[in-house]
Formats: sequence, structure tokens, C-alpha cells
Amino acid sequence: MNRSRSDSTAINIQSESSSRSKAAAKGEAYDVMRVLAADPKHDHEKGAGWKKGVAVLDFILRLGATAAALGATVAMYSSQQTLPFFTQFFLFSAGYDDLPTFMFFVIAMAIVSGYLILSLPFSIVTIVRPLLVAPRFLLLIFDTLALTLNTSSAAAATAIVYLAHNGNSDTNWLAICGQFTDFCQQSSGAVVSAFVAVVFFTVLILLSAIALRKA
Amino acid sequence: MNRSRSDSTAINIQSESSSRSKAAAKGEAYDVMRVLAADPKHDHEKGAGWKKGVAVLDFILRLGATAAALGATVAMYSSQQTLPFFTQFFLFSAGYDDLPTFMFFVIAMAIVSGYLILSLPFSIVTIVRPLLVAPRFLLLIFDTLALTLNTSSAAAATAIVYLAHNGNSDTNWLAICGQFTDFCQQSSGAVVSAFVAVVFFTVLILLSAIALRKA
Repeated sequence: MNRSRSDSTAINIQSESSSRSKAAAKGEAYDVMRVLAADPKHDHEKGAGWKKGVAVLDFILRLGATAAALGATVAMYSSQQTLPFFTQFFLFSAGYDDLPTFMFFVIAMAIVSGYLILSLPFSIVTIVRPLLVAPRFLLLIFDTLALTLNTSSAAAATAIVYLAHNGNSDTNWLAICGQFTDFCQQSSGAVVSAFVAVVFFTVLILLSAIALRKA
Repeated sequence: MNRSRSDSTAINIQSESSSRSKAAAKGEAYDVMRVLAADPKHDHEKGAGWKKGVAVLDFILRLGATAAALGATVAMYSSQQTLPFFTQFFLFSAGYDDLPTFMFFVIAMAIVSGYLILSLPFSIVTIVRPLLVAPRFLLLIFDTLALTLNTSSAAAATAIVYLAHNGNSDTNWLAICGQFTDFCQQSSGAVVSAFVAVVFFTVLILLSAIALRKA
């Protein structure tokens, strides 16, 4: 009789400790799952801190890219010059709409600038909720497409600006920058500004990739 | 005497079950850690399957991009044409080295082709070890840089090819494709091939980002 009572005590203790260990393991697994699923209520988990820092840097760089892209668009759009004299062989008025490549530049950079302005709210979302994956991923996709558009317009305009500055004797294309100094200076500035935006975009894409790496 | 023996039994059972529960919790945590750290011995975990599929697609697209980039380089490099007659006002020989933009195109596309060939082994590594993060991340960084180089050379060459085809009356730049039909056709083909490589690169970057998303 005495022995049977002590047996039941032992069994009680075992079952109690077993259920406690199960609950502990469950809790631990749940914690890990929460980090993996990036529950927005748990933004103060490990990893949220530096992700917030990356998001703030993303926003600042995006502002810089917006300024560069807008500057390039406006500079190229306003690069009109009329010469004070008229000759039969040289043109007397030059503008971005005389060269199809410069027209493409203005349209493409306007699209890029518009996209950058629209992307700012998404960048703010990644600051507020640093562990959310979806907005970062959206930004990465559209940043890549905008980078391609930005690079192509900048490079195409560079080829034409180079030709306007130096001409090409093999193809009988003469330099026009001797006559149109203001036009050439302004379009060159626009091209440089567009390449600054390209550098911003490259850094933005790499930052997004780093932030997504262990999201 | 009897009671004290049963007490010691109970204590034994408790301590045994407690150590077992600790070991179980430890094992579970270790399993989760292994998935997080992408232990190569555990590639058959959840998620490895579709990541391997993405890696195979990455390799195939990379082969396509290599072919397109190499084709563009060779086509532009070999685009030499000598006319069978000589006139005082028109040139009689045209090659990629007459136009600085086309020289840039050949050099840049050769660099991109070289990078793509060197990247193939890394792509194979991501097929063999689909949960490794480092090779995918390296590929993403250099793919972005190569995309920028590829896009800029393709766009700059496009601007010149367009000019060679159509000329520009406002700047007195005459079309040269009337004389140099073969040269123009070959350089146009090279530009199209370069843009095909751009499309491949864009898809490659987005694939890498998808694969990194939950690495």
C-alpha cells in the first residue's frame, strides 16, 4: 500500500515535467516562426534594427536619385539656344527636340523621376515596418527596370553629346558645339546628372538585396 | 526505510525526464538553426526544391545571355566594310574603330561576355547547394554592375546606329547607311543582340532576388 502511493507520486511528477518540456519546446518553436514570418507586431525582434537603418539609408538615397533625375530632365528640356545670326550652312536654332535621342532622354528621365517620387511612400513603409518583405521586393523589381531605362537614356545622350563636341571626320559629322556652346553645356550637364542617378540606383538595388537577404 | 527508497526513485525519474525534455528542446532548436544557416548537409529541407529549380533556370538564362553578349561583341568587331570605289567626299572604308561609341561597345560587351563565362561556375554552385546565400548574392551584385555596362553600351550604339540610318538634318549629319549597307546591318544586329542580353540580365537579377527572398 505504501509502495503503490509512492509510485503514483512518481508518475504525477513525470507527467507534469513532460508537459512542461513540451510547452517550452512549443514556445521556442513559435518564437522562431515569428521571426521567420516577419510578423509586423514583432518588429523589435533581432535584425529589425539594422534593417530600419538600411531603410532610412534607402530613403535618403532615393531622395538624392529623385533630385538627380529631375535635374537631368529639366536641364535637357530647357536646353534651347537660338543664335543671334543666320547663315546658309549652319543651323541657327538648336533644342532637345531637334535630336530624337535627346527627346528619348527627356521622356525616359521624366518617367524615371515620376517613378522615384511614387516610390518614396513605399520606402517610408520599409522604415516603419523594417521586417516586411513585400514592399522591399516591389522596390527592387521596379528599381531594376528604372535603372535600365535611366542607363539607356543617359548612355544614348552621351553618344550624341560626344559627337556634338568632337564630331567624327570618318563619317563627315561635324561638331556643332563651336556654334551652340550653351546648348552643349546644358545637355552635357543633363547627361552627367543622369549618370549620378544611375549610381544612386545601383546602390539602392544592392541595399535592397542586402536587406532581403535574411528577411 | 521503505518510504525513503520510494522518494529517491521519484527524484530519479524526475531528473531523467527533465534532462530528456532539455535534450528534445535543444534538438528542435538545432534543427531550426540548421535550416536558417543553410547547412549544406540539409539541402533536402523544405524550400530547397524550388530554389534548385530557380538555380537551373538561372544557369540556362546565363547561357543565353552569354551567347547574346558574345554574338554582339563578334558582330560589332567584325563589322568592317570597304567600298569598291573611291570618291572625294564620301569615305571608302568603315569599321567599328572609326566610331568611338562602337569601340566602347566592343570593349564593354567583351567585358560583359567574359564576366558571364566566369559566372557560370558560380551558377553551378547554386544548383548543387541551393540553400547557400553567398554565391547568389555575389552573382546579384555583379549582375547589376554588368547590366549597367551592357545597357549603356547598347544604348550608346543604338543612338549612333539610328544616326547612321536616318541622319539628322538639323545638325547636318548625313546618313551613311546608303553607302555602307553591310556595315550598318551588322552593327544593327550587334545592337539588337546586346539588348537581348539586357533582357536576360534583368530576368536573372529578378530571379536572384526571388531566390534570396527567403534564403
